[in-house]
Amino acid sequence: MMVHTRMFLPTLYGQATEEQKDKWLKLAENYAIVGTYAQTEIGHGTFVRGLETTATYDPKTQEFILNTPTLSASKWWPGGMGKTSNYVVLMAQLYIHSKPYGVHSFMLQIRSLEDHKPLPGVTVGDIGPKFGYDVMDNGFLALNNVRIPRENMLMKHSRVEPDGTYVKPPSTKLAYGTMVQVRANIVMYSGVVLAKAVTIATRYSCVRRQSEMKPGHPEPQVLDYVTQQYKLFPYLAAAYAFWLTGQTMMSVYTTSSSQISKGDISVLPELHALSAGLKALSSAAANVGMEKCRLACGGHGYSHASGLPRLYTNMTPASTAEGEHVVLMLQTARYLMKSYNQSLQGEKLAGSVAYLSGVQLVPAAGRTRNMLDLGVLCDAYRHRAGRLVHEAAAQLRSELQAGKDQADAWNATSVDLVKAATAHSQYFVVKNFAERLTDSTLDSSISDVLTRLCQLHALHGLVTNSGDFLEDGYLTGTDIRQARRHINALMAKLRPDAVALVDAFDFPDGILNSVLGRYDGNVYEHLLEWAKASPLNKTDVHQSYHKYLKPFLEANRAKL
Amino acid sequence: MMVHTRMFLPTLYGQATEEQKDKWLKLAENYAIVGTYAQTEIGHGTFVRGLETTATYDPKTQEFILNTPTLSASKWWPGGMGKTSNYVVLMAQLYIHSKPYGVHSFMLQIRSLEDHKPLPGVTVGDIGPKFGYDVMDNGFLALNNVRIPRENMLMKHSRVEPDGTYVKPPSTKLAYGTMVQVRANIVMYSGVVLAKAVTIATRYSCVRRQSEMKPGHPEPQVLDYVTQQYKLFPYLAAAYAFWLTGQTMMSVYTTSSSQISKGDISVLPELHALSAGLKALSSAAANVGMEKCRLACGGHGYSHASGLPRLYTNMTPASTAEGEHVVLMLQTARYLMKSYNQSLQGEKLAGSVAYLSGVQLVPAAGRTRNMLDLGVLCDAYRHRAGRLVHEAAAQLRSELQAGKDQADAWNATSVDLVKAATAHSQYFVVKNFAERLTDSTLDSSISDVLTRLCQLHALHGLVTNSGDFLEDGYLTGTDIRQARRHINALMAKLRPDAVALVDAFDFPDGILNSVLGRYDGNVYEHLLEWAKASPLNKTDVHQSYHKYLKPFLEANRAKL
Repeated sequence: MMVHTRMFLPTLYGQATEEQKDKWLKLAENYAIVGTYAQTEIGHGTFVRGLETTATYDPKTQEFILNTPTLSASKWWPGGMGKTSNYVVLMAQLYIHSKPYGVHSFMLQIRSLEDHKPLPGVTVGDIGPKFGYDVMDNGFLALNNVRIPRENMLMKHSRVEPDGTYVKPPSTKLAYGTMVQVRANIVMYSGVVLAKAVTIATRYSCVRRQSEMKPGHPEPQVLDYVTQQYKLFPYLAAAYAFWLTGQTMMSVYTTSSSQISKGDISVLPELHALSAGLKALSSAAANVGMEKCRLACGGHGYSHASGLPRLYTNMTPASTAEGEHVVLMLQTARYLMKSYNQSLQGEKLAGSVAYLSGVQLVPAAGRTRNMLDLGVLCDAYRHRAGRLVHEAAAQLRSELQAGKDQADAWNATSVDLVKAATAHSQYFVVKNFAERLTDSTLDSSISDVLTRLCQLHALHGLVTNSGDFLEDGYLTGTDIRQARRHINALMAKLRPDAVALVDAFDFPDGILNSVLGRYDGNVYEHLLEWAKASPLNKTDVHQSYHKYLKPFLEANRAKL
Repeated sequence: MMVHTRMFLPTLYGQATEEQKDKWLKLAENYAIVGTYAQTEIGHGTFVRGLETTATYDPKTQEFILNTPTLSASKWWPGGMGKTSNYVVLMAQLYIHSKPYGVHSFMLQIRSLEDHKPLPGVTVGDIGPKFGYDVMDNGFLALNNVRIPRENMLMKHSRVEPDGTYVKPPSTKLAYGTMVQVRANIVMYSGVVLAKAVTIATRYSCVRRQSEMKPGHPEPQVLDYVTQQYKLFPYLAAAYAFWLTGQTMMSVYTTSSSQISKGDISVLPELHALSAGLKALSSAAANVGMEKCRLACGGHGYSHASGLPRLYTNMTPASTAEGEHVVLMLQTARYLMKSYNQSLQGEKLAGSVAYLSGVQLVPAAGRTRNMLDLGVLCDAYRHRAGRLVHEAAAQLRSELQAGKDQADAWNATSVDLVKAATAHSQYFVVKNFAERLTDSTLDSSISDVLTRLCQLHALHGLVTNSGDFLEDGYLTGTDIRQARRHINALMAKLRPDAVALVDAFDFPDGILNSVLGRYDGNVYEHLLEWAKASPLNKTDVHQSYHKYLKPFLEANRAKL
């Protein structure tokens, strides 16, 4: 019922009129009906305008006639729709007198409240097994001339009058607000799942011992290997970084939503563009980081006892859902291009793109830099983002000048645009982390260790993308070498605090659900116990022996 | 029975004496007995010398007494051991008169041939569910004073005489030969799984249409988006690159094994070191690439209908098994350090490390390069590998000079050493791809398209790691920008051939096992068919409704 709680109810809160709330909200809040949110179709996801499901208004009966006119229009993926839900919020193209009015939302009962059977005209079922979410009945839905009353359109923002008159919403940008909130949640959630994976891998790396580092000495904890630290500590830092980023986004959203509720939506485009890139950046980093953590646990990471495979398969949809990575990065890029061009025309930019006004393209060569200085690091990230935005804009211009139309030029530049949007998002994360450290209420011992994490986060991103900083000579080879040495030194300093830093996330064992990540470190004993509890071990001799193996072996022996 | 075929039988072929073969091989080849290979323990994997299972020789009875003396000594992971096998090849520490002789292999019957029950002293079972390989019964095994006759030690290479005299093997390096072969197989296999994933994603990207690229135009195939090409084409190229690398490794191995069988093992250390890095590089690239392909299929990639999740969960163990990534890279690095130091002492190096003799550290600045020229690209990769080997060696020296002992200095330099070994391995792959194109029997149209793939592979690796080429000024920012433009142009040229290039892998639909990757492209129709066949859809109303949902909903309604 996850989607009931996370999507169905919030949609009613946000899009239903007061009368509609009276009718459905009490039922839904008390789970007297169970609903889901049906938007994605088998052939249509990210591009919402391309949805094919139709809701055609019939003024004679004051009903909408719902159809999935083609195979590719079938709704696909809604969680809980396969077997559980009896209601859906249906996203469909509204048609009145053969004229399209775009995608709108409709309350639709799909199953009988008496016997749970699909209602007439409704074909519904489960879409089959997936990478993760084994217990979620994601569903498909086909509709054939299903009629619902006019009052079932969710009409808080736009309306259809009984005679078929369409009343537009006050602003199409209002929906951005919810989107920003959802994305801020994903950014925080990326931090949380990274924190879980890093907790498991860090604790296990103190239990696991391997190889003789020195002849005759006992096998060291694997976390004493610098390469193991290099696998885990950057993600430890990233977990903190994304959590803090999500927090900031949420607080900016809260601050601006009072502004928005007063009708001032000027802040929305920037917030929306920023949140797109940050959601894409953080979910991709979580995706990669969780698997690095799993692989850092060696063979045992592959066992479900580690908890890491399920953590991954349940999180990885966040890279696709609520906007695919590249699509979101290009949304951010579009805003960056627009802002950059405005700045070229002398407009003063504000907020997260303010720095684009002052892009300095001539690097200050030959300077000696302290690569541990967070100011120096933020400057470097800012310069890189600014330069990449500038270069993507120049490339776009040159494609246009070479005769391509806007769409083709954009497509031809898109790899550079994604690169620029990524750099912009990374700059925001690094800067935000550094700014949060200036909080004067922080205890100095806490602030010291968080500063190391922030430095590591910034330096790791810098050496991983060193070409971006070197390409125009902004940083020198010496700077990069210095950065690498600092990373080694920081990791050595973080090593004694590593377990405390993951314990600080405060995940109880029941939430981590990992034999490897147990707080008490009794890994091997509980691995064996966990294995023995496996259904296959109920009997010493499994039924497959009697059914298949015994006749097979006996026949083979008889042949000899 | 996969491990029976892939490990148990080959071990008997390679390590059993003629008498032992007479006794067991016929039984094993005819599946009258089923065996597996028991090496890894719950607490010991990569570091084989650390295994704890013991085989203590008792000269009185001429038997070995087998024990897993601690919890962490329990054998863990052997495929087919959980419920199926009745024999294992057991790897155990040999002790004679309390003296250790290292790890040796022993034939051990674990289950009765009559009723399949575990034999006395044997505790055996399944280790529980994993990320993938759902149908494989990976097992655990504990041994308590299990006695086997002296003749059960596999004695082709080393022997224990009846009186307890130990006879050493002629060379401990002989086992390297098998390892090289196994790793070459993994490199090829990495190419194969990447090819499968790219085939699925490329075909689906021609079926899937998304967004309006131009107002009023139909939604384009997603493969027409340059960002989608950038996701897939580098892995298309990598699939070819790794396949060709694996082929070359196998042919070098075959050539040298005749030399080795004549007792000349001089070639083994280099082959062994090279194969370690190439296995690590290719399996990691396959790991990342498969997930990129899955994510490039949007939501549908997450469904088991795509075939991509299972492809991934079955391949990802290759990053850990047969040598973990970092451990292998450091084996390669150790050989590189040794070779580099030899070259500094004036020795002439041969084979894959020959280039280390001539590391030129002063880059030829200011030159204009044709970044499409494979010679120029190979030179750049060679220079980068040479420089990184040189710098890792210098770093190692400086850690030693600062007073660290060898082990600590190595550990402190290990991130740089992994970087150097990775660059060395990448250079080999690029050079090998380029060399294979000089095959004069290649049809020129084939050679043209393969050249584009090779250029793309080299350029993509170059821009992804551009910092390595820029850091010492070997390449300039202009070179890197040129490289990026070439990548765009190459992708545009490859676009019309993309489907042909994946069709050329010639995977039948039954092998790909993917609704998205179907040869005929009828994706949506078969997705729906596949879903409808799911067990959950046998009835419209699932039993969970009657058992849980109905009483729940009714109780909630009654409360209102």
